[in-house]
Amino acid sequence: MPTYDPDNIFAKILRGEIPSHKIYEDDHTFAFMDIMPQADGHALVITKAGSRNLLDADPKVFTPLMTTVQKIARAAQQAFGVDGVLIKQFNEADAGQTVYHLHVHVIPRPAGTSLKPHSGQMADQTRLAEHAAKYRAALAQG
Amino acid sequence: MPTYDPDNIFAKILRGEIPSHKIYEDDHTFAFMDIMPQADGHALVITKAGSRNLLDADPKVFTPLMTTVQKIARAAQQAFGVDGVLIKQFNEADAGQTVYHLHVHVIPRPAGTSLKPHSGQMADQTRLAEHAAKYRAALAQG
Repeated sequence: MPTYDPDNIFAKILRGEIPSHKIYEDDHTFAFMDIMPQADGHALVITKAGSRNLLDADPKVFTPLMTTVQKIARAAQQAFGVDGVLIKQFNEADAGQTVYHLHVHVIPRPAGTSLKPHSGQMADQTRLAEHAAKYRAALAQG
Repeated sequence: MPTYDPDNIFAKILRGEIPSHKIYEDDHTFAFMDIMPQADGHALVITKAGSRNLLDADPKVFTPLMTTVQKIARAAQQAFGVDGVLIKQFNEADAGQTVYHLHVHVIPRPAGTSLKPHSGQMADQTRLAEHAAKYRAALAQG
């Protein structure tokens, strides 16, 4: 497996070199809106520690990573009024990975809707900002 | 959210009341073949602690759960000769959940292939047994 590249786009987001629609941050994780959402409220949770994906991740990241995924998934139910939440994580290009920094997709799934394609169309920035605000409001309520 | 039902099919597999094509087991997790695979080598990792899905899971399970998912994903690469491994986890029916016991899908993704539908067709038992044996051999090699 190729090694981790610290100049990937998510590492740049973590360093503040590229803007993002931030939802949440703690010592070990960072959550923000996917700019090519497969559904409204499609969020990403990334680790601050650099790894290419799950395959080379240090198991020390698993509790903080999944605790944040759980937190964002619960907030998604509240913020987007859904019961269903899909979690996906891609390892390597053949599985659909496009950015080589460990990230977990959190996707609200309203009843009776289909997912849009992965890495499909860029969303409107105003809309993404509104969705990030919905998440932050849900998280603030606990 | 409805509560956890200890008579779900995966709880029965854990108690040995229903057979499964077992790949791996430790104190906190159990891995076996999905009987309706979306691709060859489609495995499931479940927690021994009962929770309905990720939303109500005790964060204590995250490190053992994801450590086993990582182990099975690495074994999948070796056992099925793939680079790509897709990880999925469904929360509630609208997201595709059909069994209400926390489980993570580990799906080998050979280049240039499409996934079969989720909960599609029952696989041949002999073939599932062979695939479980491939996983166990890969895990034994480390």
